Amino acid sequence: MHAYRSHTCADLSAANAGETVRLSGWVHRVRDHGGVLFIDLRDHYGMTQVLCDGDSPAFKALEKVRSEWVIRIDGSVKLRDASLVNPKIPTGEIEVYVRDIEVLGEAAELPLPVFGEQEYPEETRLTYRFLDLRRENLHNNMMLRSNVVRSLRNRMWDAKFNEFQTPIITASSPEGARDFLVPSRLHPGKFYALPQAPQQFKQLIMVAGFDRYFQIAPCFRDEDPRADRSPTDFYQLDVEMSFVNQEDVFAAVQPVIQGVFEEFGKGKRVDSEWPLIPYKESLLKYGSDKPDLRNPIEMQVVSEHFAGSGFAIFAKLLEQEGTEIRAIPAPKGGSRKFCDRMNKFAQEQGLPGMGYIFWRKAEDGSVEAAGPLAKNIGPERTEAIRSQLGLGEGDAAFFLGGKPESFEGVAGRARNVIGEELGLTEKDCFKFAWIVDFPMYEKDDEGKIDFSHNPFSMPQGGLEALDGDPLDVLGYQYDLACNGYELISGAIRNHDLAIMYKAFEIAGYPHSEVEKRFGGMVKAFKYGAPPHGGCAAGIDRIVMLLAEEQNIREVIMFPMNQRAEDLMMGAPSEPMNEQLRELNLRVIPQD
Amino acid sequence: MHAYRSHTCADLSAANAGETVRLSGWVHRVRDHGGVLFIDLRDHYGMTQVLCDGDSPAFKALEKVRSEWVIRIDGSVKLRDASLVNPKIPTGEIEVYVRDIEVLGEAAELPLPVFGEQEYPEETRLTYRFLDLRRENLHNNMMLRSNVVRSLRNRMWDAKFNEFQTPIITASSPEGARDFLVPSRLHPGKFYALPQAPQQFKQLIMVAGFDRYFQIAPCFRDEDPRADRSPTDFYQLDVEMSFVNQEDVFAAVQPVIQGVFEEFGKGKRVDSEWPLIPYKESLLKYGSDKPDLRNPIEMQVVSEHFAGSGFAIFAKLLEQEGTEIRAIPAPKGGSRKFCDRMNKFAQEQGLPGMGYIFWRKAEDGSVEAAGPLAKNIGPERTEAIRSQLGLGEGDAAFFLGGKPESFEGVAGRARNVIGEELGLTEKDCFKFAWIVDFPMYEKDDEGKIDFSHNPFSMPQGGLEALDGDPLDVLGYQYDLACNGYELISGAIRNHDLAIMYKAFEIAGYPHSEVEKRFGGMVKAFKYGAPPHGGCAAGIDRIVMLLAEEQNIREVIMFPMNQRAEDLMMGAPSEPMNEQLRELNLRVIPQD
Repeated sequence: MHAYRSHTCADLSAANAGETVRLSGWVHRVRDHGGVLFIDLRDHYGMTQVLCDGDSPAFKALEKVRSEWVIRIDGSVKLRDASLVNPKIPTGEIEVYVRDIEVLGEAAELPLPVFGEQEYPEETRLTYRFLDLRRENLHNNMMLRSNVVRSLRNRMWDAKFNEFQTPIITASSPEGARDFLVPSRLHPGKFYALPQAPQQFKQLIMVAGFDRYFQIAPCFRDEDPRADRSPTDFYQLDVEMSFVNQEDVFAAVQPVIQGVFEEFGKGKRVDSEWPLIPYKESLLKYGSDKPDLRNPIEMQVVSEHFAGSGFAIFAKLLEQEGTEIRAIPAPKGGSRKFCDRMNKFAQEQGLPGMGYIFWRKAEDGSVEAAGPLAKNIGPERTEAIRSQLGLGEGDAAFFLGGKPESFEGVAGRARNVIGEELGLTEKDCFKFAWIVDFPMYEKDDEGKIDFSHNPFSMPQGGLEALDGDPLDVLGYQYDLACNGYELISGAIRNHDLAIMYKAFEIAGYPHSEVEKRFGGMVKAFKYGAPPHGGCAAGIDRIVMLLAEEQNIREVIMFPMNQRAEDLMMGAPSEPMNEQLRELNLRVIPQD
Repeated sequence: MHAYRSHTCADLSAANAGETVRLSGWVHRVRDHGGVLFIDLRDHYGMTQVLCDGDSPAFKALEKVRSEWVIRIDGSVKLRDASLVNPKIPTGEIEVYVRDIEVLGEAAELPLPVFGEQEYPEETRLTYRFLDLRRENLHNNMMLRSNVVRSLRNRMWDAKFNEFQTPIITASSPEGARDFLVPSRLHPGKFYALPQAPQQFKQLIMVAGFDRYFQIAPCFRDEDPRADRSPTDFYQLDVEMSFVNQEDVFAAVQPVIQGVFEEFGKGKRVDSEWPLIPYKESLLKYGSDKPDLRNPIEMQVVSEHFAGSGFAIFAKLLEQEGTEIRAIPAPKGGSRKFCDRMNKFAQEQGLPGMGYIFWRKAEDGSVEAAGPLAKNIGPERTEAIRSQLGLGEGDAAFFLGGKPESFEGVAGRARNVIGEELGLTEKDCFKFAWIVDFPMYEKDDEGKIDFSHNPFSMPQGGLEALDGDPLDVLGYQYDLACNGYELISGAIRNHDLAIMYKAFEIAGYPHSEVEKRFGGMVKAFKYGAPPHGGCAAGIDRIVMLLAEEQNIREVIMFPMNQRAEDLMMGAPSEPMNEQLRELNLRVIPQD
């Protein structure tokens, strides 16, 4: 017989009754029923109940085992009494009577119980990650992640993509975030960088003549702590294609992502209609460039109804350039209580408040508009608004005004809350949309023109478009939104050096700077670059959505904490003096 | 019609004759046949001949294109004259008459031609890697690598392994090589390290209750330059299993590796008999722990025939402790010319020479032994040697003496040369062997006992074995050899803390040092560790063997040069002062 097992802890069923078997696993739970010991023995595959009484030569040894000891047992498979059958587990019809036991690994007093799913401080969970991972939820999340990655890979391969590995120890390639640097020992004073993404390399792969690339690629960004991000590295499904336009990328990616959500979405409906929503429209309708389309609410511009109206705040606002009044319709939200709560929500989010109107049945049986705003603007304008928004008795609408960028974020969040609270937001489904036509440029806080997203994207309209107002230039740049999250970001790349130089010039980078920062790619584009484009999908985010987890650390095997520390392994740590000497580095003493 | 192509450059055949098509690709070669331009248009998939004459509106524009320009053409598919059909390519029956052309990407004068496979200096090839990769050989190598990795993954998945990603920014885990360090910005003065291998993490995954892990894992070692190694990072198929012994690992891995060699070995025979050869026996018989078993030569100990013999050098040698005389039989090597050449080979390798005997037909028709050695030891001993080695007329044998470690390496290399030169080494096959029973310890140059391989391996015989002579202790440690290369290294791990502390103690590491260096793993082993083991297979090495390449840079997409520089991207490079300041580091000025 094998040294450790004849079966896994999920294998045995009534068909094995009478067999002599060997099992190995962790002691999940011990119960002592007056002279009979019951142990739930657990391994990767499942759980088997084993038992022992004083008649067995193994009894004395088995009495000593504690939770999470690793043991090997020999015994015989017995059918359980019909009343004791556990239909919830595959091995629920049988139990194993133990005749021999070997302790393979003892366990000290546990800092974190594996049995049960009690909440424990994250500090403890991360320090003893190897115990936390034995718990059912985390174990399942890791298996889900493994299976999702497998499925993504297979789907990409089936779609004729090839997986290539790109360098990890490489050149700095500034893409908005901070690089992790790696000092070179052989070249004192010089540093490598870990790639923020394989962006340049995947474009070089296209220039090198390969047609469809993908990689489940590690990406490294030295981020300041944020709850929903790994502070050091994350994985993305990285994709690039040659001789394509935007629609080709969408057509290649949708079946992959949709397929994975259908496969692992626990039966939730996966919408196959993926609308293309221009960035500007998305901000207007949903207050976000990653709208949650499960929520049917669409905001509208209602400026005309407030211009010159009796509601002085909005009327005055509208006299300033670039201002708008937008309405969030709230079907079935027509109660003062709800409207006041939402007004308070807006205040908590930093706005002065949200005006509202709600419609109720008047004493005479007609529909009447209520709320201070309605009084201020009068019945005609109120009715025009109701009619534009398609609302009626029992409904409400909220109003926000000013420059859109000043309230769009709050409006988007209010839309989420309204959808949730009024039960409008669909449950148990995934809804996707491609957000397209992102602006190439934006003004930064100091009024300087800068790239708003990826500087490598192709501007729509090419070189000519760059002669106009930069803020009007749209890029062939797109995101995939799903249920309020950004799952994918991508672009058709700028493979034309003349356009690229010009695009960077507008953002204030002279040729020399472009060549210095993106030397490898610029050089390559001089020798025959094909039109190409692609995207990158966040693996952690996809798994989080599928696992219904809110915290990225629940879907990563060995995550850092938010202070970028690995509590289990003790990283980062002080280097040895010899290491610093070899690297020709000195740490500057802190005050 | 699509903006870039209706077909790829490998799609069109006689069945498309008469169709109007659109193709995009690189100008592989231009030929001007007196007013008719022929262009081989190339993309990832293949090549299509397109042509144009003065009657076409595209002629003027097409005249301007040069090698490696990217163009889009529209044209009509025509059957070639029977005499011009090229049966070597799938599109060889047709050509496309061009009516419209668009230049998608011009190319400057090429520093490296893509057409043809001329040798070019590696410096140029690496600087313009994107051009080099367009060449057929490198392109094919990359596709092979992609397909090999895919196949390895699928085979592992089919064998019920799960792929998990382990951290890349992590703690230093000394495993014999030098770490790459990554300075932490959030924790000034502290450093992360890039993993030399996911060794500790994969063991932790087993302790965390997962059963069968694999990963195509990047590994990082700050190596000094060596021709056959990447100086920074490489990929390995990393494998770990719980509740297994050595044979389970072999049984799991063989079908995966064998299958990949059968799939991609270009029809070469793949041996399915994988013998287990103890390390000591391998050194004796083959002079190497990664023997090339395509070579049938097995060395033997022939000390007894030289002890007290008339060949004084060997006779005296044998009076010293630990010395041996070994013979390399050389069937069909029985000529003085060959024997002298091999003797010279040994001298070039730093030995005083190799004694030899060869057997020839004497004038009387009998077999006679020739060579100075035969004369010295006389006919009886000579005959005993011949008989032991099973040699006869036309054969030879070479002799090396001393402490085995002083000549084993040369003996192994001589065996290779003899096998090659005498045509004994089989061609067109892959032969594998598991080398087992590696010693746990060795004496270093200063006579200190140290681990000879992986310190995490389980010593055979457990705790008791460690009470004896450390140099006698064997480990459950194994390598897979194939055609003279080491493809895999692995071990059953030491999951028992008592044995681990003792094993490290023997090598001079106190408990405190073990806990400091391998803190995460030591901590984990206190809470119920299962027996486990695994291995790691070198991806680059496997692809090199399959691609019949000698240089690792021929199977990596974007390799470093031997000075650990990326000539294309310009890494490593000087950091910005601001980056160093953020990291709290100062570079020590060089003299």
